Amino acid sequence: MTKISPTDIQRAHERIKPFIHKTPIFTSEQINCIIGASISFKCENFQKVGAFKARGAINTILSLEESELKNGVCTHSSGNHAQAVAYAAKLKGIDAHIVMPSNAPSVKKNAVIGYGANVIECESTLQARESTVASVVKEKGCTLIHPYNDNRIIAGQATASLEIYEELGSDYLDYLLTPIGGGGLLSGSLLTTKYMSPSTKVIGCEPEGADDAYQSFQQKKHLPSINPNTIADGLLTTVGEIPHAIIAEYVHDIMTVSDAEIIAAMKLTWERMKILIEPSSAVCLAVVLKNPDLFKNKKVGIIISGGNADVKALASLL
Amino acid sequence: MTKISPTDIQRAHERIKPFIHKTPIFTSEQINCIIGASISFKCENFQKVGAFKARGAINTILSLEESELKNGVCTHSSGNHAQAVAYAAKLKGIDAHIVMPSNAPSVKKNAVIGYGANVIECESTLQARESTVASVVKEKGCTLIHPYNDNRIIAGQATASLEIYEELGSDYLDYLLTPIGGGGLLSGSLLTTKYMSPSTKVIGCEPEGADDAYQSFQQKKHLPSINPNTIADGLLTTVGEIPHAIIAEYVHDIMTVSDAEIIAAMKLTWERMKILIEPSSAVCLAVVLKNPDLFKNKKVGIIISGGNADVKALASLL
Repeated sequence: MTKISPTDIQRAHERIKPFIHKTPIFTSEQINCIIGASISFKCENFQKVGAFKARGAINTILSLEESELKNGVCTHSSGNHAQAVAYAAKLKGIDAHIVMPSNAPSVKKNAVIGYGANVIECESTLQARESTVASVVKEKGCTLIHPYNDNRIIAGQATASLEIYEELGSDYLDYLLTPIGGGGLLSGSLLTTKYMSPSTKVIGCEPEGADDAYQSFQQKKHLPSINPNTIADGLLTTVGEIPHAIIAEYVHDIMTVSDAEIIAAMKLTWERMKILIEPSSAVCLAVVLKNPDLFKNKKVGIIISGGNADVKALASLL
Repeated sequence: MTKISPTDIQRAHERIKPFIHKTPIFTSEQINCIIGASISFKCENFQKVGAFKARGAINTILSLEESELKNGVCTHSSGNHAQAVAYAAKLKGIDAHIVMPSNAPSVKKNAVIGYGANVIECESTLQARESTVASVVKEKGCTLIHPYNDNRIIAGQATASLEIYEELGSDYLDYLLTPIGGGGLLSGSLLTTKYMSPSTKVIGCEPEGADDAYQSFQQKKHLPSINPNTIADGLLTTVGEIPHAIIAEYVHDIMTVSDAEIIAAMKLTWERMKILIEPSSAVCLAVVLKNPDLFKNKKVGIIISGGNADVKALASLL
């Protein structure tokens, strides 16, 4: 049984609203024609820091007690959570220490530094990242902001689907699809849907090369991501314990797609919708394209999770 | 003295409204910070057929008499006007014959064919294109839809800035910037601005490699585009006579930028705004970036003219 109530999600939304964008919901007649469905894309690529992660990080940092804030916050991330924590800390005027692997692209490091955060480099193994964060916490006395295994993070991510249901109405969507990495967005979306649009079925979408959530769902136990390898670099992580429990209870299905299918869906989105999305965000459309019979004539919501893509590198794969 | 009245532009808007998108106006805090100005981007990359050209083509085709419609319409274009005419003809249920150079990218030919138009290939010289169109007109008895040298086209393109002033208010913008190729968008924007927001200064933005409008403005006579060469492939054309007369009377300035500056502005738009724009659409932001003192603390409107870009080829230039 989750501890996140409808009021928690509503309060998270009130708390973060002044600091985030109410992102638009886009439709594409051309993509609807190809699929024979009616798709609503919630464009979190236009969110602050270019990804939904701003919601959870801001909600968490604005929820901290003074004693937890006074020595700043820290996290380890090479991706959107790093920028989100840096941005949220700047809003609150506190220090942020971000542990990043030394091989992270300099554009990502510079974005974090641009928000005024302190970047601490380490080796790229999970072990090195966790031990570096632990020593930063010990040395600075700062508060760790976990990217997904935290009720406040989940309540923050839940506000993306809250805005969808506020705009489109309850029970309008037949399906809501979100990508699944650590599970914060999917578990948050599951709770919002349970509370606000109970007839909508929620499907988690995962790359075949990082299918721990799919395996966990099939085998009904919490399994780790082993040697994950996918172009969808935001989805490499193992699902956290807290999100896993929510997903196991409420998700309708977990579906997977190959990297080639992800790239094709990303290309379609870039070319037809004229919006830049990162590979992790193309996983949901890839699932719809792969399963035309399931989604035919249905109303489908898709959360475009972010737009922080290395366009040059990705375009060479098109 | 132009023959296009405020009522003509208003009626064009009423005529095309059911068939076009009221495109959103985007802002970017990051780009505003870089420039120290407040920029409003009118996103015609989200327009039908991916470019503002839908406005003029639909207005013109919906304005034709039955006698002009009965044998269909034709035009020559390798770009957005081709798709716009094909789309508008489909709306009206008439034939469209589009003359395209045989070396036009197959993606562009396929888009036109996808709208149900008949593609006629010819050599890529202007002479071959014009003589092929002339023979199509003679053979089929169809009506030529000129891409810019036509009052109905100009009135259609004028509706993009009409929507800007309706949304932002009259005289809110200090400057309005549009790209200039054949001159339809710039001349239409000049008229709307004169009628609806007279204190706003309109600047035409042009690539250095196709600077006929700049030269014409400097030398106060109508000069042709000679051997144009620029990455902004939508802006290679010589300004038409009708647009030229309007531009000569009302434009505040014509400013040019290099291809390197265009590519840098396009990269900035892709990466910071997460929207796909074609190189021709990046010319205006490139002008702002090149002239920081002029635009500092100003309210600047920019029309993003389209998003039909070969992302793979362009990304290799970033």
